[in-house]
Amino acid sequence: MSWEDNVRKVIPYVPGEQPTGRVIKLNTNENPYPPSPKVAEVLSHYDTDDLRLYPDVHGGELRDKLSEVYGVDKEKIFVGVGSDDVLAVAFMTFFNGRTPIIFPDVTYSFYDVWAELYNIPYMTIPLDDDFRIKKDDYLRTNGGIVIPNPNAPTGCEKSVEDLEYIISNNPDSIVIIDEAYVDFGARSVLPLIDKYDNLLVVQTFSKSFCMAGARIGMAFGNKKLIKYMNDVKFSINSYTMNRLTVAAGVAVLEDMDYLKEVRGKVIATRERMKKELTALGFTFPDSKSNFIFASHNEIAAADIFKAAKQAGIYVRWWDKRRISDHLRISIGTDEEMDAFIAFLKEFINGYL
Amino acid sequence: MSWEDNVRKVIPYVPGEQPTGRVIKLNTNENPYPPSPKVAEVLSHYDTDDLRLYPDVHGGELRDKLSEVYGVDKEKIFVGVGSDDVLAVAFMTFFNGRTPIIFPDVTYSFYDVWAELYNIPYMTIPLDDDFRIKKDDYLRTNGGIVIPNPNAPTGCEKSVEDLEYIISNNPDSIVIIDEAYVDFGARSVLPLIDKYDNLLVVQTFSKSFCMAGARIGMAFGNKKLIKYMNDVKFSINSYTMNRLTVAAGVAVLEDMDYLKEVRGKVIATRERMKKELTALGFTFPDSKSNFIFASHNEIAAADIFKAAKQAGIYVRWWDKRRISDHLRISIGTDEEMDAFIAFLKEFINGYL
Repeated sequence: MSWEDNVRKVIPYVPGEQPTGRVIKLNTNENPYPPSPKVAEVLSHYDTDDLRLYPDVHGGELRDKLSEVYGVDKEKIFVGVGSDDVLAVAFMTFFNGRTPIIFPDVTYSFYDVWAELYNIPYMTIPLDDDFRIKKDDYLRTNGGIVIPNPNAPTGCEKSVEDLEYIISNNPDSIVIIDEAYVDFGARSVLPLIDKYDNLLVVQTFSKSFCMAGARIGMAFGNKKLIKYMNDVKFSINSYTMNRLTVAAGVAVLEDMDYLKEVRGKVIATRERMKKELTALGFTFPDSKSNFIFASHNEIAAADIFKAAKQAGIYVRWWDKRRISDHLRISIGTDEEMDAFIAFLKEFINGYL
Repeated sequence: MSWEDNVRKVIPYVPGEQPTGRVIKLNTNENPYPPSPKVAEVLSHYDTDDLRLYPDVHGGELRDKLSEVYGVDKEKIFVGVGSDDVLAVAFMTFFNGRTPIIFPDVTYSFYDVWAELYNIPYMTIPLDDDFRIKKDDYLRTNGGIVIPNPNAPTGCEKSVEDLEYIISNNPDSIVIIDEAYVDFGARSVLPLIDKYDNLLVVQTFSKSFCMAGARIGMAFGNKKLIKYMNDVKFSINSYTMNRLTVAAGVAVLEDMDYLKEVRGKVIATRERMKKELTALGFTFPDSKSNFIFASHNEIAAADIFKAAKQAGIYVRWWDKRRISDHLRISIGTDEEMDAFIAFLKEFINGYL
């Protein structure tokens, strides 16, 4: 008997590489544009004296501002340290039954990690051959449902009508719709939170808000859901949203015009990339996110991944069943994407 | 069968009140002094462009700087969102046995909350009548040990020798020494982490570093312990330490002279308060922390607590067995403490 016998042994989530130095980083779906200049402005005048005091347990002004911008009562909003924190708390709060929770087989690779960590039984539901979620698959008995929309790493959107079909037909399960990428052209189910008491909508500042480095995520749901989540959160760490982050988050929300402009640019670049990649022999499901999940008709994804990395361009590749022929390519600036296309042209020419 | 059946129902930790407006706040052991002016300086020049990128999963420069300042290999350092995050991860990582973990009956009120949340069996060990930890009580069979030093809310220090006695006699248990308040005059067991592979030392930026609002905590232990904690952390949320917090934390560590000055002031005020409170008829265990756990010889703590609150002075009081006769009074500035003493004099005069 040693203390090691009592250690929780896990296979942790492996985040995408964070290389330093001059590389083109298309591997972790960050936004290529900086956040609103209002953030720098707020920080330059920030009264650091208040850092001596604990922050508000509910995210204070950040939650107030979210309430104002999204038109949602603040008691229906939960904020956390990135949507990973929000999702982890939601899994822990809502998925304590014996019936497996369900989510797609090809999806955000953190869902099964949380399920393993918290001893939540789970079952994955295969996407169809076009990487699409089939709504009727989600009518089976379950202890909870998690669906990202758009899905990752596929980028596919599921319609609000199909999602409502799933939500309304599972009144006894919490349905989490993970909308990390929803702002890049998909429709949100947020308006449904007052209609369905079993719906939790999760969003983030990390993608469309250009703030992955600030770690802010949020969930929207009815008051009862949010209260249950807060009870669990207060049993782990009461004060998660620090004062600087709250101030920076509020600044971003005060510049929604800037956010719209950035989204427009990312979407325009993505649409152009679809054409460029198609011309180079790639196929992919239609993406409504800030990445494209592409497979080349003749060249193995692993080979492109390795060669790109050597050329200083990082994309994401998984050595996993069903998806090892695909690369997930984040949408960078136009210049970055031009460099990537130039690399591909040269590599494909030399390869074929 | 409804989704509510699968909700984790908890009795959450109740944080001390965070009143707004002009009050004297002696209820949550915050530092009365602002953090080093270097924080404002760093923020005013912060390049917000990098906020679009995820932060380093290990806390990056903050861990590097801690390593430098504390002289501890960075692989022996874990950083988290306040010491509550660090402790929660440690509980989840190390306490997965069936034998109860043990900690004092009068102590930080989060320990039993985490144990309940994570289904960790636990048993509390009574302090003696002087609120002291008896070292031989911690030689019983256990699945882990948690001891704060100084203890909260008592403020009592346990000697390094006594703690080493407990650590060395429990080689098969992880022993967590929670040193949230150690910088106010107690001795740290940090030098023992290389001698004992079962020792984890937890500290925080929230008290002596004047940064409760920034949410930074850290743990020191051998590389194996820290790796196990990181594996669990990476299964919950890879990126907890955001970029702004890391920058602010580094700035604080670059001004250790300021920290020493602030600690000196808090300690001087505390020592003066001991005399003032004694003169007013209070008794208390000798405090080595930034608070005093005091009981009046004639007046109920609840009465003083309520009257102080009405006078705009917040201290902490718990309606709990063994401690309901006591107030935990955080050490504020000299001016704040003078106002509290003036209130007490008037109140006691009117009462007796």
